[in-house]
Amino acid sequence: MNRKPLGFTFNYFFVIFLHMIRIAIDTLGGDNGSAPIVDGILEFLKDNKDVSIVAVGKKEELKKLEGLCEIVDAPDIVPMEAGPLEVMRMKNSSMYKTVTLAKEGKVDAVVSSGSTGGFLSSSTLLLKTIPGVNRAAFIAPFPTKVKGHKVVILDIGASNENSAEELRQFAVMGELYSEHILGVENPKTYLLSNGTEPKKGSPVGKEAYKLLEATDSHFKGNIEARNALAGFADVVVTDGFTGNIFLKASEGMAKMMSGMIKNAFKKNLWTKLGYLHVRKGMKEMSETMDYKSTGGAMLLGVNGVVVKVHGNADCYSTYCAIRVAKKLVEKDIANKIKDGI
Amino acid sequence: MNRKPLGFTFNYFFVIFLHMIRIAIDTLGGDNGSAPIVDGILEFLKDNKDVSIVAVGKKEELKKLEGLCEIVDAPDIVPMEAGPLEVMRMKNSSMYKTVTLAKEGKVDAVVSSGSTGGFLSSSTLLLKTIPGVNRAAFIAPFPTKVKGHKVVILDIGASNENSAEELRQFAVMGELYSEHILGVENPKTYLLSNGTEPKKGSPVGKEAYKLLEATDSHFKGNIEARNALAGFADVVVTDGFTGNIFLKASEGMAKMMSGMIKNAFKKNLWTKLGYLHVRKGMKEMSETMDYKSTGGAMLLGVNGVVVKVHGNADCYSTYCAIRVAKKLVEKDIANKIKDGI
Repeated sequence: MNRKPLGFTFNYFFVIFLHMIRIAIDTLGGDNGSAPIVDGILEFLKDNKDVSIVAVGKKEELKKLEGLCEIVDAPDIVPMEAGPLEVMRMKNSSMYKTVTLAKEGKVDAVVSSGSTGGFLSSSTLLLKTIPGVNRAAFIAPFPTKVKGHKVVILDIGASNENSAEELRQFAVMGELYSEHILGVENPKTYLLSNGTEPKKGSPVGKEAYKLLEATDSHFKGNIEARNALAGFADVVVTDGFTGNIFLKASEGMAKMMSGMIKNAFKKNLWTKLGYLHVRKGMKEMSETMDYKSTGGAMLLGVNGVVVKVHGNADCYSTYCAIRVAKKLVEKDIANKIKDGI
Repeated sequence: MNRKPLGFTFNYFFVIFLHMIRIAIDTLGGDNGSAPIVDGILEFLKDNKDVSIVAVGKKEELKKLEGLCEIVDAPDIVPMEAGPLEVMRMKNSSMYKTVTLAKEGKVDAVVSSGSTGGFLSSSTLLLKTIPGVNRAAFIAPFPTKVKGHKVVILDIGASNENSAEELRQFAVMGELYSEHILGVENPKTYLLSNGTEPKKGSPVGKEAYKLLEATDSHFKGNIEARNALAGFADVVVTDGFTGNIFLKASEGMAKMMSGMIKNAFKKNLWTKLGYLHVRKGMKEMSETMDYKSTGGAMLLGVNGVVVKVHGNADCYSTYCAIRVAKKLVEKDIANKIKDGI
């Protein structure tokens, strides 16, 4: 009779001291202020007793979190367009303090919906890139035509240009992400290009093709942008500038078409009735397309787990981003990259 | 009484000898063979008595056109992935012969749905670029959120990389197209980038920003891919590699969403009934998104009018492409570029 509670206590302590995952959340800098971020943290804590959260931001805006998580007062907001020097000087900013917690080993992961450039600079400058990684890369999972299947694309905007060797490193990081986070066995990797033949592509792309062909057993060749979401690719590698264009072109078109669909249904009573019939199908579609559920973009290649939530973060996307951060820590992605690169 | 017929006769001859537009159509190399191209020509000729067509291809496949237009027998098909040297050696190919007709001044415009690379090489090598134009560019009008408004984007794939000076030239050509072909007064030009601030962009992009700012009064700054179709831009300038990624990412997403919408309506009798209600709205959407109606991509910057139809050309897209070719000749676009550059 005595054994059971003892075993339970032991496990409990084991979880607390060895596996309690600690995540710092920058609650400032998002388009909608700290309120939705706070709500996202509250929701996450309800479902995840094994995670300890450090909320960083304006103390007076974090009252709802008192007693539920550690609070760090850092009232300054890094401006959207801050350069690297500016961020590194803003030592009282929520962003700088958040990333510093990771640097000092006080947390395992950081999450922010603030300035992308600022978060990128502070993360790479404070946490440093993993040995063997020249450049960190933003990676994000995209929906595909194949239900439930996601393709990861990187870099979607950490760099303005990349070398062939950097693209090779992105491939390795993407494959590790696909394997360990999305559970894809033996992921298939493609290089984003303007045609499928090896001779297609930008000068750097052509060089990267040769390098990947020679070194990466997952590499299957070039892929055109129109097929990146077709479902057969697991990892799509591209330089940061092109990846950003791809991401935003897809996003823009998806938004434009959603708007047109909504208009088609809004016209009159009959079209509204029409909507009732296809509501379920439309919901499935918007779930497939919902970038919020993917937890934003992850910065791979730095010593730590860094998750960037969309600037327009709400409660749900914050929840999802913390969930992804937790998973990245559990799967020890940074160390896997260290070994794999 | 005598004057009228005389006047008429004079006008008639004037039209015939001075204004009869001559267009050569390559009927081979498309995914669906020559039949839909022939049908497109027939439809076009019904509505356009003032255009003389030269159909180039396998003589036996052009029987329907006998007596209606000139026929040039050229049975060889340029393969999809032909390099420049290969095309220039295929002197019996429909593509080479079509472009040669323009080179020899026998036609004012050429249209093809064959190999894009082959058409690009033969057009630039045979027709040469306009003095002052370093590189020809593929341009296409895209639908936007603003009903009826189109934005032209170039280059969408003629080059794999471009210099800042080439991007500046693209801006001038795009503006002339927007003004004279789409009738936009004082078009607004943007540079496709990964952010709106001047410091954003690839190294070449940043240089092009400065050049455009200094020389182009239409230039309004950078535009992100997600806003390229928002409706406020008339001309979007980009290098050929990035433009191709933009084009195909938009296309891929549009296709994916259309597929999902169709599935949502196909599920059962009720969803099919739902479709009946929104049929009109959906039709409006597909009309907005219909790339076929834009007549494919135009190659700007060469001495002549060159229109590339989508490889998957059907009767309607062929019709539209010839219509665009006619308009480009009427508006004397090549000479306008010569003067404007």
